[in-house]
Amino acid sequence: MKDIAIKFKNYLIINMKIIIVGATGTMGRHLATAFEKEHEIVRVASGGGDIQTDITSLESIENLFEQTGPFDALVSTAGPSYVGPWKKMTDKEFRKGIEGKLMGQVNLVLIGQRYIKPKGSFTLIAGALTIDPQLNFSNAAAANGAIEAFVRAAAIELEDGIRINAVSPTVIEDSPQYFPYFPGEVPVTMKQLEYGFRKSVFGANTGQVIRPY
Amino acid sequence: MKDIAIKFKNYLIINMKIIIVGATGTMGRHLATAFEKEHEIVRVASGGGDIQTDITSLESIENLFEQTGPFDALVSTAGPSYVGPWKKMTDKEFRKGIEGKLMGQVNLVLIGQRYIKPKGSFTLIAGALTIDPQLNFSNAAAANGAIEAFVRAAAIELEDGIRINAVSPTVIEDSPQYFPYFPGEVPVTMKQLEYGFRKSVFGANTGQVIRPY
Repeated sequence: MKDIAIKFKNYLIINMKIIIVGATGTMGRHLATAFEKEHEIVRVASGGGDIQTDITSLESIENLFEQTGPFDALVSTAGPSYVGPWKKMTDKEFRKGIEGKLMGQVNLVLIGQRYIKPKGSFTLIAGALTIDPQLNFSNAAAANGAIEAFVRAAAIELEDGIRINAVSPTVIEDSPQYFPYFPGEVPVTMKQLEYGFRKSVFGANTGQVIRPY
Repeated sequence: MKDIAIKFKNYLIINMKIIIVGATGTMGRHLATAFEKEHEIVRVASGGGDIQTDITSLESIENLFEQTGPFDALVSTAGPSYVGPWKKMTDKEFRKGIEGKLMGQVNLVLIGQRYIKPKGSFTLIAGALTIDPQLNFSNAAAANGAIEAFVRAAAIELEDGIRINAVSPTVIEDSPQYFPYFPGEVPVTMKQLEYGFRKSVFGANTGQVIRPY
């Protein structure tokens, strides 16, 4: 066993440059800590982190990649959307998820593809609301559905071996404040979530929606 | 058999007021012709039809419903999106489907729910690109995915028995100009498409994505 472990070790990709967008959030912090042991992590957030980026601004996204230069993987856990009563939802509220979780992430890919290295990967965040809706979350549901369809479509367009997947968890173990809004959903553990992202970043699959539960 | 047909006839809903948005398009024309035998049809289109509406304008949508007044069903076949090479896609092109097929249809629901009658229904248009992507159509894929998730989410929010579904066809029989872009997809016939919409408008289901193939 030891010999095999040594033999295959050379095939592992280590010391990748991984951009984590949303790095100060619950998911982003966990992933940064988990991946930094073997990889170079660039922490990106709207406030804090290594680089401050507003993903609703094309200029800010362009500026992000100007600073990072070529990279191996981009992981996005940045999903602002409107959470609140349907009765109060108008176009204005709905735009929060459209500009944030949807177009923010789409533009990270459309712009980032000019900076990513061949065989690099994008991993976006979606969520189980795509298929299991909950009250107050129709905006996130729509954004998630768009992201899941987008990664399937982008996977057949991206060239140079560049891959793209989405991780689509239920409510997150370390965000108990959301539990009451997700009755009947078994929270995904931080480890399950991490392994979902590992599958996308360090695996070879593309166009997949990874449901880590 | 004849007695049964007569007996149940009284249970059928006839003479509904049905708004068809996109009424001058291939799908909309077919549905208007099919439904007008038994129902009152309001033909809505960006140009032509009974009422001209720009679904990317909140004011125009509001104005539409001011003119129609209360209605029983809204059918949308209006799905503008960007079709073209991935390489040329930027935020600007992607907005076409976001503003049109996605937010246009979402706003028909968010605004229309204030005018629709109890037990009324919304039927939106999505498409098989959600699950079966094709080159050049990533914008439509994202919009479709959003619409499919949105109807599932909106179905548990809408009150007064109001229903919402999406019809999600492959390429359409009467749009042969698209066939070369959908290799391997068996076109849905106009009858299959019509029956998909019938299921939503005249059935009792809600939160469904109807795949008429």
